[in-house]
Amino acid sequence: MNRITSLFNIRYPVIQAGMVWNSGWKLASAVSNAGGLGLIGGGSMAPEIFREHVRQCKEATDKPFGVNIPLLYSHVDELIKITMEEGVEVVFTSAGNPKKYTAMLKEHGVKVVHVAANLKFALKSEEAGVDAVVAEGFEAGGHNGMEETTTMTLIPYIQDKITVPLIAAGGIGSGRAMLAAIALGADGVQIGSRFAVSVESSSHDDFKNKIVEIPDGGTKLTMKKVVPVRLIKNNFFREVEEMENAGASAEKLKEHLGKGRAKIGMFDGDLEEGELEIGQVSASINEIEPAATILKEIIDEFNRVSEVIGRMRFD
Amino acid sequence: MNRITSLFNIRYPVIQAGMVWNSGWKLASAVSNAGGLGLIGGGSMAPEIFREHVRQCKEATDKPFGVNIPLLYSHVDELIKITMEEGVEVVFTSAGNPKKYTAMLKEHGVKVVHVAANLKFALKSEEAGVDAVVAEGFEAGGHNGMEETTTMTLIPYIQDKITVPLIAAGGIGSGRAMLAAIALGADGVQIGSRFAVSVESSSHDDFKNKIVEIPDGGTKLTMKKVVPVRLIKNNFFREVEEMENAGASAEKLKEHLGKGRAKIGMFDGDLEEGELEIGQVSASINEIEPAATILKEIIDEFNRVSEVIGRMRFD
Repeated sequence: MNRITSLFNIRYPVIQAGMVWNSGWKLASAVSNAGGLGLIGGGSMAPEIFREHVRQCKEATDKPFGVNIPLLYSHVDELIKITMEEGVEVVFTSAGNPKKYTAMLKEHGVKVVHVAANLKFALKSEEAGVDAVVAEGFEAGGHNGMEETTTMTLIPYIQDKITVPLIAAGGIGSGRAMLAAIALGADGVQIGSRFAVSVESSSHDDFKNKIVEIPDGGTKLTMKKVVPVRLIKNNFFREVEEMENAGASAEKLKEHLGKGRAKIGMFDGDLEEGELEIGQVSASINEIEPAATILKEIIDEFNRVSEVIGRMRFD
Repeated sequence: MNRITSLFNIRYPVIQAGMVWNSGWKLASAVSNAGGLGLIGGGSMAPEIFREHVRQCKEATDKPFGVNIPLLYSHVDELIKITMEEGVEVVFTSAGNPKKYTAMLKEHGVKVVHVAANLKFALKSEEAGVDAVVAEGFEAGGHNGMEETTTMTLIPYIQDKITVPLIAAGGIGSGRAMLAAIALGADGVQIGSRFAVSVESSSHDDFKNKIVEIPDGGTKLTMKKVVPVRLIKNNFFREVEEMENAGASAEKLKEHLGKGRAKIGMFDGDLEEGELEIGQVSASINEIEPAATILKEIIDEFNRVSEVIGRMRFD
């Protein structure tokens, strides 16, 4: 009845994004148990930690779940290997060339999805043989594309040009936004920020509380000379902004970034000196709730809004 | 049956944005005659030219129409005066403080709408007594907000906090996007780019043909140290980008901008040296059509999609 629910054999076409420092086995299994597709975020895990999360997730749910592997991550080969050894059924890849691993994973019976922020990479993903594409808009948290195309404009543009199922990401944290994404042409949605603020998210409580507080304009896409990343505006962000306004080079910015800023911010809870990756939809997130409650609220709202919208005609 | 159609006494809750160099009486009257609300874009008109457009529009349609007046425009007082002298029923104001003219216009029986890109100005507009608020997302063409909040995240965020009718703008050029905006909480939509590429738009044919050609990533928000503006990436844009990357000051950027760049680009058709203001949705615009055809396509698509979406439930 839906290309995403049947592809993954899940109840709701909702994927929980595999976010660094947020998406361990607790969050992924909670979402999968509640009827969505939970993803373990491999991008912040050393290989043996990653294996442990996969194993714990298999213990915690008998429902399908997957992993997210950013292809720019230094341990990517080992993570892919562990994925196959542990029999993970679904791999979302991002931030890199979808041609590199898709064929091999598919040969091992793994379902592969690639995250793209523009048409070029959506088409490349399709050519590589992926089972679905995530199109991620500018409003999404964390790393993002150079084109800055928003979900509203990206989804219909890509949907017109690909044939594999399309998952919308960026700015989606509610049932009405899920409905909007599906109206725009998506088959399902990937939700990050809202699940980052779940009880089961592995990020620091201070980070979650900060997200709950921030209003519109609380995040900004920055570090565009290096790799664009959407961050909460804190002291580190303002330092980077000042450097950028003064014309700092990519090298200087990388040097200032240093190592481990994302961990320092999101996992250790240093709200001023760390990288705090979250999407614009954070403005509308006002509560830390269990993942199952979040998913139920989203689906209930979707059903309510679809009933109202379904009665609307203009003539 | 809809707060926007009843507010303006129009058939469809679709407003054609009053865009500089695009929205003269021909476009505004064509949209109003087709059942939307056409707006004359006052921001690029000398006062007597503006008066002439208002008079021609009254000749060309007996349906409601309005004007857009950017409050940072040097002739704003004269334009407001002409608006009242000519008995224009609807004024959209933008780019400034909504408190300045709203009360006076309302006393003269004019319906007033203010364009906001963040919650602060949406609330200020409501306090000032406007009849409706336009919330405009980052993907919109031309001048834009500092917060960079996209339509997908801005609309539900603002809708939760205001009580006057809400019009969504930014990224909307189709019926499915209109439906998405209404699902997100808008009562109606304001459409710019799609009507900029109409037969009746007063901009240069070369500009229209350029819009039809550009893919995703063809525009970018730039000039952030001065006033953020979304432009097509041409030679002028690249010069500005280079200056910004090297840390140029607001003064240097203003000096490079000079005077009349928008006219040079959009009206005179200098595609390399002018400012070409258009939204991200331009990637999905592939044809120059009459305004009435555009409006009909949008409404027909809305009705088709609402029927499909209305049948969707997840349980």
